[in-house]
Amino acid sequence: MNAPTPAAHLEPDVQARPVPQAFIDALKARFGDKCSTALVIREQHGRDESAFAPVPPPSAVIFAECTQDVAEAVKLASQYQVPVIPFGVGSSLEGHLLAVQGGISIDLTRMNKVLAINAEDLTVTVQPGVTRKQLNEEIKSTGLFFPIDPGADATIGGMSATRASGTNAVRYGTMRENVLSLEVVTAAGEVIRTGTRAKKSSAGYDLTRLFVGSEGTLGVMTEVTVRLYPLPEAISAAICSFPSIEAAVQTVIQTIQLGVPIARVELIDHNTVRMVNAYAKLGLREEPLLLMEFHGSPAGVKEQAETVQEIASEHGGNAFEWATTPEERTRLWTARHNAYFAALQSKPGCRAISTDTCVPISRLADCLLDSVAETDASGIPYFLVGHVGDGNFHFGYLIDPEVPQEREIAEALNHKLVSRALSLGGTCTGEHGIGLHKMDFLVTEAGEGAVNMMRTLKHALDPHNIMNPGKIFR
Amino acid sequence: MNAPTPAAHLEPDVQARPVPQAFIDALKARFGDKCSTALVIREQHGRDESAFAPVPPPSAVIFAECTQDVAEAVKLASQYQVPVIPFGVGSSLEGHLLAVQGGISIDLTRMNKVLAINAEDLTVTVQPGVTRKQLNEEIKSTGLFFPIDPGADATIGGMSATRASGTNAVRYGTMRENVLSLEVVTAAGEVIRTGTRAKKSSAGYDLTRLFVGSEGTLGVMTEVTVRLYPLPEAISAAICSFPSIEAAVQTVIQTIQLGVPIARVELIDHNTVRMVNAYAKLGLREEPLLLMEFHGSPAGVKEQAETVQEIASEHGGNAFEWATTPEERTRLWTARHNAYFAALQSKPGCRAISTDTCVPISRLADCLLDSVAETDASGIPYFLVGHVGDGNFHFGYLIDPEVPQEREIAEALNHKLVSRALSLGGTCTGEHGIGLHKMDFLVTEAGEGAVNMMRTLKHALDPHNIMNPGKIFR
Repeated sequence: MNAPTPAAHLEPDVQARPVPQAFIDALKARFGDKCSTALVIREQHGRDESAFAPVPPPSAVIFAECTQDVAEAVKLASQYQVPVIPFGVGSSLEGHLLAVQGGISIDLTRMNKVLAINAEDLTVTVQPGVTRKQLNEEIKSTGLFFPIDPGADATIGGMSATRASGTNAVRYGTMRENVLSLEVVTAAGEVIRTGTRAKKSSAGYDLTRLFVGSEGTLGVMTEVTVRLYPLPEAISAAICSFPSIEAAVQTVIQTIQLGVPIARVELIDHNTVRMVNAYAKLGLREEPLLLMEFHGSPAGVKEQAETVQEIASEHGGNAFEWATTPEERTRLWTARHNAYFAALQSKPGCRAISTDTCVPISRLADCLLDSVAETDASGIPYFLVGHVGDGNFHFGYLIDPEVPQEREIAEALNHKLVSRALSLGGTCTGEHGIGLHKMDFLVTEAGEGAVNMMRTLKHALDPHNIMNPGKIFR
Repeated sequence: MNAPTPAAHLEPDVQARPVPQAFIDALKARFGDKCSTALVIREQHGRDESAFAPVPPPSAVIFAECTQDVAEAVKLASQYQVPVIPFGVGSSLEGHLLAVQGGISIDLTRMNKVLAINAEDLTVTVQPGVTRKQLNEEIKSTGLFFPIDPGADATIGGMSATRASGTNAVRYGTMRENVLSLEVVTAAGEVIRTGTRAKKSSAGYDLTRLFVGSEGTLGVMTEVTVRLYPLPEAISAAICSFPSIEAAVQTVIQTIQLGVPIARVELIDHNTVRMVNAYAKLGLREEPLLLMEFHGSPAGVKEQAETVQEIASEHGGNAFEWATTPEERTRLWTARHNAYFAALQSKPGCRAISTDTCVPISRLADCLLDSVAETDASGIPYFLVGHVGDGNFHFGYLIDPEVPQEREIAEALNHKLVSRALSLGGTCTGEHGIGLHKMDFLVTEAGEGAVNMMRTLKHALDPHNIMNPGKIFR
């Protein structure tokens, strides 16, 4: 007996288009072993970390090994008008990888070479399947690092596609600011470059930033050039507990307004601290806390830290715990990096519905505190973490996927939160992207006119609608 | 007797489209006094600071006072398929404002209100006709400032349209990084918003950055929200002379590679110092010099300055002259800000053909020194200034507009310089835009495929080709 689905928006709207056998045959002829139609492989490529119900997987997976592979796969797909979904490590939280209109997946993880380290220019050019940790490992000897850290060890291609950011963005910016140029396979299978390695340019339309954040809907990125930064001479990390979320958030607001170049400032609420303590035996005070990192010269780091400590103590912040060695820092950051999995483990069998609002910094307390009160009242367990220096935070509502009512409550909470964020001048997504989940929110946020302009751009660059169709807008 | 024009690319390719009298009548009926067809007004709006030969001016000038004025003017223009050229203060160096296909000018200087100062969020929303100096004047009491300084007191709208940058970009970024969102009148006369005031967002295509740098070819910006920064606690400026351009440039390269967060670092060559001395009686040593500025805490500024002084002295830099009061700083910066006019005055009746290449920082010396040698050998007088921390510099070839041969030589020098910059991974324009002058360079730099993609975007958003047609690409 199938009851009507109460939370329809977590059941993707599946409208699979035909995938002709002749197309699959052509792929097999061209790609041989690099083309798989095995069910287990296809299923791996038809899902992500979102809470969406499963949909039928793509009809085939191409393991691309070079730009030419991607270009030829897309050309064939264009000829047969079959959808194409680029795939990195599958860490999307918004259903980007679900084959809602059928088609094929292009797995880019074999394109994982660091192509050119230009340390003397603070740039590096990589294939899209390089992950951020791999990148930092491979450039270790240069004294430089790539700061963008969305939590998951995502690929640089995937991070570019969702305009990712994460913990270091408050100081170093997001993928928007850090991608210098791209090589892209267009929807027609042509290869173009969107820019040079110059730090700035006024040469025509900003194609780089049109593709960054386009969620695979305009083309496939096959090379990415990003900015690097000198490893700071000194790094210092600290945890500070607060009597309330409000006290923690006010500390952040004042830190940002004063212009302190803090490198990381993450909020972890008391629920999440409890979950992380249970998961990783960290023994942290079960109070809201800020996890901070300062980068600079030894004197500069000391100065920043003193300023923030003073602000924190005005708000009742206590128990500053410092870490200056890499090992101590890793221990502190364990709390943040384990939050997601610790939360999932706190309620066996649950899935997390993650919110991603981002508001102007002065509205952070307004946005956050009302939503905390609402969520506490709902009875749904949740974790709350945030890149609060950017005004960005995530509730993770922990729902039992078998209990439709929990989904309904979680979606209602998310809806209220997004409405609140938009009314405060914010956005429905700071870093996860629109995907399948936030299409209605995008219309509310940007307006019909702007979304229609996005549709016009999409139609112009992808007239057969083969590039990851059904995402961002309907 | 008309000789064939030797430097054809400084004679714009004029292909005026018909401007029906009924359209002008409709404008007059709608706009009354806000519509001018007086020749002197039209001529003021049909030229800029470029060295292009004059072309027939626009048929009318609309002095828009609100978004609705712009929307209605564009709607009428769309109906009659007449070109529209947005106009700020006319400081373009690339022919952006020339009515090469006829049409009308929309003057935005009456839209000069600061609409919302959100000091607590470090943002401000302005109408497009606000100039950068006006903006900084109006926000003075907030303790914040808007750093982008392209030299001219340009409008925020014009700076957004050309993706401007200038002296502070090495630390604070360009308009690309500092425009948060826009209100835009589309080519159909619709009003859209391209973003929110959130510091970051992954909500759909990056329409903001598609419009930033689009040179008026996609729509008219009617509101601009930009980021502000806390005024630094301490500011210190210095001039340092060097025995050679190479020594100065090597100092810059090492400073950037070390990650010193220098706020400004400008190169002025010995020719330019001589011109500025003659113009403003500054009594500077007539050697290549770097003009630097450091922002931060008192200790931070001291630390940065010491690091750079050490690097400079390794390269023979001497005579560091410091300025910490606003008055002293203004005196030092006079040299930089007067360079353009001092150069023009050094050769009465001349015009300057300005180059704008930008290369990865490690290639700066290669690019610059060979071009200096070439230019010295040519016998054409020139000035040379540069936002060298970004790898961006400008030769100004001082030509007599009546002597075609001088134009030819200058264009040949520019051509060699751009080819060199592109071969070193750079761009033909760091901050001035493509306009009329660099259309061929853009094709060389970006490739036919990328330029065709720009054309496709333009055609999709402006199907009648009415928005500043004939610019960026043919």
